Amino acid sequence: MKSLPFISDDMRAEFALHLDKIRKEASAAGLDAVLIAANANIYYVSGRFFRGYVYLPVAGEAIYFVIRPSVFGKEDGVMALRKPEQIMEILTENAVPLPGKLGIEFDDLSYSESQRLMKCFPGVEFGNASPVLSAARMVKTPWEVEEIRRDGMHQASVYHRIEHLYKEDMTDLEFQIEIEHTLRLEGCIGMLRTSGRLMESGLGSVISGENADTPSPYDYSMGGAGISPAYPVGADGTTMRTGTTVMVDMAGSFNGYQSDMTRVWRIGDIPELAVRAHQCSIDILRELEKLAVPGTEVKELYLRAEAMAEEAGLSEYFMGHRQKAGFIGHGVGIVLNEQPAITSRCRVILKEGMVLAIEPKFVIPGVGAVGPENTYVVCADGLECLTVFPEEISDLL
Amino acid sequence: MKSLPFISDDMRAEFALHLDKIRKEASAAGLDAVLIAANANIYYVSGRFFRGYVYLPVAGEAIYFVIRPSVFGKEDGVMALRKPEQIMEILTENAVPLPGKLGIEFDDLSYSESQRLMKCFPGVEFGNASPVLSAARMVKTPWEVEEIRRDGMHQASVYHRIEHLYKEDMTDLEFQIEIEHTLRLEGCIGMLRTSGRLMESGLGSVISGENADTPSPYDYSMGGAGISPAYPVGADGTTMRTGTTVMVDMAGSFNGYQSDMTRVWRIGDIPELAVRAHQCSIDILRELEKLAVPGTEVKELYLRAEAMAEEAGLSEYFMGHRQKAGFIGHGVGIVLNEQPAITSRCRVILKEGMVLAIEPKFVIPGVGAVGPENTYVVCADGLECLTVFPEEISDLL
Repeated sequence: MKSLPFISDDMRAEFALHLDKIRKEASAAGLDAVLIAANANIYYVSGRFFRGYVYLPVAGEAIYFVIRPSVFGKEDGVMALRKPEQIMEILTENAVPLPGKLGIEFDDLSYSESQRLMKCFPGVEFGNASPVLSAARMVKTPWEVEEIRRDGMHQASVYHRIEHLYKEDMTDLEFQIEIEHTLRLEGCIGMLRTSGRLMESGLGSVISGENADTPSPYDYSMGGAGISPAYPVGADGTTMRTGTTVMVDMAGSFNGYQSDMTRVWRIGDIPELAVRAHQCSIDILRELEKLAVPGTEVKELYLRAEAMAEEAGLSEYFMGHRQKAGFIGHGVGIVLNEQPAITSRCRVILKEGMVLAIEPKFVIPGVGAVGPENTYVVCADGLECLTVFPEEISDLL
Repeated sequence: MKSLPFISDDMRAEFALHLDKIRKEASAAGLDAVLIAANANIYYVSGRFFRGYVYLPVAGEAIYFVIRPSVFGKEDGVMALRKPEQIMEILTENAVPLPGKLGIEFDDLSYSESQRLMKCFPGVEFGNASPVLSAARMVKTPWEVEEIRRDGMHQASVYHRIEHLYKEDMTDLEFQIEIEHTLRLEGCIGMLRTSGRLMESGLGSVISGENADTPSPYDYSMGGAGISPAYPVGADGTTMRTGTTVMVDMAGSFNGYQSDMTRVWRIGDIPELAVRAHQCSIDILRELEKLAVPGTEVKELYLRAEAMAEEAGLSEYFMGHRQKAGFIGHGVGIVLNEQPAITSRCRVILKEGMVLAIEPKFVIPGVGAVGPENTYVVCADGLECLTVFPEEISDLL
């Protein structure tokens, strides 16, 4: 049995590191092993998506059980599996000691699937593996940071072309469609991996003018009516008008990792209030880039941003106007919305290698949304930006 | 308390019908009430997506609890909610009798979320509401059928433009990107709602030539390597070559409901085997259109298709070559993969109003995939096609 199937020789050390990070978190959570099945976690431990399970003991080698694609069992020496009910028998046959307490991804798998998996391990105790995997994934390895940086470079390359996609009297939706098209031609895989059922997503969001103030049911930082009550978020298909802003928060994934970047354009002159709010957002980013050193509590970032918005007299517009988001950023990696969420109550302590998207935005009624968003990696002396692109508001002509 | 908030007067009878269908299935399952939270089910009972819950007693009025968008509580007279822990208290305050047995969507909600909801109802017994909702949604109302027909018309309108999108030496991915772009300009909402974690999806799939024979981990009918191991399905970015087929299985949603349609194009001449397999697929569709009358068991459709492929000497290529799908179709509606799955073991009895996507496909090694897919509604005398578009293989020139 290969301990790291699929994985090329030069990537073995990397994925061995991922497994070790999970083992460490699992051990701290009192688990003897975790059974990994959620799509993003499968990718984290194998560098690919497959249908199946990875059984990872705290003390022992990982075993890769693959249901589909069916051909792997023959080609790569991994354990082919028909159904999870076979796992315990295979472990026993291979003299793998059974865990006293097994972690299952209770936040990711359905109640029915979790129940089914638990029935596969009679006599075993269970714990929640989701926080274990989240904690392991929250601190990125240098290779992961480079994957995200590479994603950010693709995204910046697309953003550089955005102003050329604009035509007068375009709708926000037409504009978004041209940006999506450019993202796809740049190599975006066409699917955005999010976590939780409140985060359905296309390739991101463009909101312009008054639509920015339309509340949405989703857990995104900004709203928008969308073009269907079935998917009420983002562009609503109205013509982009002079005197308004256009916020582009598209987040294509190019390589399995994601970066998250927002920039703002304007059509004609916009009110001073919007210009000032955008500058306040940039000032908040500059401040947080210094504040976010290893050891800082995440909530300090939120509270500092909130205080700066208040000092600027902009609280009314901060993180939404009619409806406000309760966070100013979030972790990002294999999925768009990873841990930690940057809220007023998050007690997570920053560590080197955490990757955060920070988006202190404002919604100015009748004008639109302003404020850039960057993806950063936490370094010894503060944040390093992975989404390098001018932050000021540019003109759409 | 309005019993059907959000819903315009002319749609009240429609949504009252949806609620009654759920009540009937819930009652048959021994439930006194269901708590609806899953996105697709929220849409089914309200015609929109919101974050929250719908409490539906078998004997009594539905109560709509809305967490987000936060503005609805004030504007529409629905029950504003902060967290599910408040539901029981609100029911008690409003003299709504507590259920003896409450249905929770155990197939749709995570284990953690399900546990949290169950803790909100001390002293109550629980059952699985997911099959109840699936059963209710499986048989469409005439309005729903028209929504799906409308979706199919949009899709056909895009498919009519497909051959004009082709350019010589294009890659399969470039071709797919142009089709996506056309779908979006036609009004596609840019997000495909699927069910289950094995169905991550962009806007569909284009597979050409040998890539059709690459097994994928996903539960789609066809495979393909994709362009990233993070999302290994569909177009792989290779140039489309003479002597191969191009299968287009794009499935944009335009209005909250979906239709599913596949058509096949070819570049230059293709081997007789592929032409014959495509005709066999069309023959299977014609046969199933007659066989699928109310009262037929779903598995009969699968078995008849399988037998016809065998009679034609094409079993080796039927529903895949290196890796085979275990179904020839599926229900379709608010999500792409609804009940029933058309497998050799499905004992569901067809009823008028069920909507099925049927896709008896073949993979010919070195040539590509063939076989059309249509979305049908079950009528008294067989299937009526909702995706009207020529089925023969057309040339890309």
